[in-house]
Amino acid sequence: MNTRIVLRQRPQGWVDEACFGIERVAEPECGAGDVLLQALYLSTDPYLRGRMNEGPSYAPGFELGRPIVSRVVARVLQSRCPGFAAGDLVWGFLDWAEHSVVPMGAGLQRIDPALGRPSHFVSVLGMPGLTAWVGAIEIGRPAPGDTVYVSSAAGAVGQLAGQFARRAGARVVGSAGGAAKVDYLLQRCGFDAAFDYRGADLDAALREHCPRGIDLYFDNVGGPTLEAALRHANVAARVAVCGMISAYNAVDDPGIRGLQAVLTQRISMTGFIIYDHVHKLPAYQARVAPWLRSGELVFHEDIVQGIEQAPAALIGMMKGQAIGKRLVQVAPE
Amino acid sequence: MNTRIVLRQRPQGWVDEACFGIERVAEPECGAGDVLLQALYLSTDPYLRGRMNEGPSYAPGFELGRPIVSRVVARVLQSRCPGFAAGDLVWGFLDWAEHSVVPMGAGLQRIDPALGRPSHFVSVLGMPGLTAWVGAIEIGRPAPGDTVYVSSAAGAVGQLAGQFARRAGARVVGSAGGAAKVDYLLQRCGFDAAFDYRGADLDAALREHCPRGIDLYFDNVGGPTLEAALRHANVAARVAVCGMISAYNAVDDPGIRGLQAVLTQRISMTGFIIYDHVHKLPAYQARVAPWLRSGELVFHEDIVQGIEQAPAALIGMMKGQAIGKRLVQVAPE
Repeated sequence: MNTRIVLRQRPQGWVDEACFGIERVAEPECGAGDVLLQALYLSTDPYLRGRMNEGPSYAPGFELGRPIVSRVVARVLQSRCPGFAAGDLVWGFLDWAEHSVVPMGAGLQRIDPALGRPSHFVSVLGMPGLTAWVGAIEIGRPAPGDTVYVSSAAGAVGQLAGQFARRAGARVVGSAGGAAKVDYLLQRCGFDAAFDYRGADLDAALREHCPRGIDLYFDNVGGPTLEAALRHANVAARVAVCGMISAYNAVDDPGIRGLQAVLTQRISMTGFIIYDHVHKLPAYQARVAPWLRSGELVFHEDIVQGIEQAPAALIGMMKGQAIGKRLVQVAPE
Repeated sequence: MNTRIVLRQRPQGWVDEACFGIERVAEPECGAGDVLLQALYLSTDPYLRGRMNEGPSYAPGFELGRPIVSRVVARVLQSRCPGFAAGDLVWGFLDWAEHSVVPMGAGLQRIDPALGRPSHFVSVLGMPGLTAWVGAIEIGRPAPGDTVYVSSAAGAVGQLAGQFARRAGARVVGSAGGAAKVDYLLQRCGFDAAFDYRGADLDAALREHCPRGIDLYFDNVGGPTLEAALRHANVAARVAVCGMISAYNAVDDPGIRGLQAVLTQRISMTGFIIYDHVHKLPAYQARVAPWLRSGELVFHEDIVQGIEQAPAALIGMMKGQAIGKRLVQVAPE
């Protein structure tokens, strides 16, 4: 039997386990032209929250009763499609299921094991990594000496955004929830400063850690953190809007106050969705893989074992339980 | 005697006449190195509201008891400074006074009458014009076929922002207060559509007039209009934040709701202050003066007569009474 995770009901506010169903269904058959896959790693991502709603966010919504879909690393078990052979490693948007079938291998991306570990292709060498690059470097344009503030800095994207900005010569400050994450940022990721946002006075923390103001804010959370960053933004500051997780579960939208700073400080605030930048992935991988091998770039994966744990892993990630990129391992490599 | 307008008290909320004093003081003396000026036109601008507050906005605040200062077109009455001669026309940041003295002519810009009428140098050939250009063209980057929405479209800046975007091939939609302004936009300025925002359902109006969504929003007002524009923004839309007049008089900041659109629609929102772009003025004037002479570019000035009327002229401009650029004429050309 094939275990899969489906959307049982749509969340109101925070996601909970009742939103998911764990089903055991018949093994899929590998028909003519099909590729039969065994999932190795499921990626848990904040944007999945939007897809659990009715109607489209920037990606289409999941259907009730149908499997959750995210980026998944998989191994080809059987191929009746030219170009794929048993044993190949691939990644693609796949069902949260132990096994699945992809007609004509549509949308599957081949994994080059020389570049990195299989899990890396949905983390540091995949979209979360490219997201950090586009936001921190292409949109953020950090100059040597700039102060860069990253929220949700110990997350999959944040940890890299800070390190990329630091490589560009910026002074990097991160906020995260809890002492363990702050330690991780300071001790492992080389952030110049980091603080625990929980219970913190954000203005006091930003005054202390960004005494020369903020030149780039890499925004993963929106809400009061964005408001605080705007209050401390320098002239010509950039805000790279990567996520607004504070709003994802909000039924009500209290609004962002202090947006006049966009005018008075000549701020440029740019939202981006990594789908628009997918074509940059090969160049990004080629640039970053050597840094990863040499250890210049630190990347932490928080790997939860077992597909049955996927709902709890996703919920916990959204609540900030993970350090780094949270993945669910479904089968051994 | 020399009549001048001073800041008598700082406004709380909307500016009223009690904020101003009309004083008659001794004529200034033209000392060694001085240039003695006769004011011809005072510019009334929304940003003056910020300067009437305590403490700096993006420009320093006015001092209580001291004259209001804005861009003024003036004639040299007497010069004891090399480079200036009686009869020269200049513009600069000058006191709201019939006569004033500028040591060494510091900050005075010479007016070339071949380019346009004297009043144009604080309107269409001055900062309001350059503001429209930078926001609509440099930040807005309108492409042929784009839909451009301009709020406060019949104002000094808005009327030009729309016409510049239209020259770039965009479809231009403006909102303004009252039927006369809407007529002006449609009949004189060549806007493709225009509507009266007063009493309008903004969403219904934008659905009707921007049926293919908004690619560039030239924001003069902020507040609920910005919120509505965000709801109708297309993917990759730009927001050029030129002014947030809705917030200038607000004691409270209700926040901007729906900012998640910045992320989901990949919007770029850029604030700008024209001081940062002053070096572009000569090139701008050279580009635009021929369009003005040929009549391709329409520009309306609303000229109030008499320095004593300056407070009422400014207050009325802030309340939306003027069509086009409101100036106060202090003396005949």
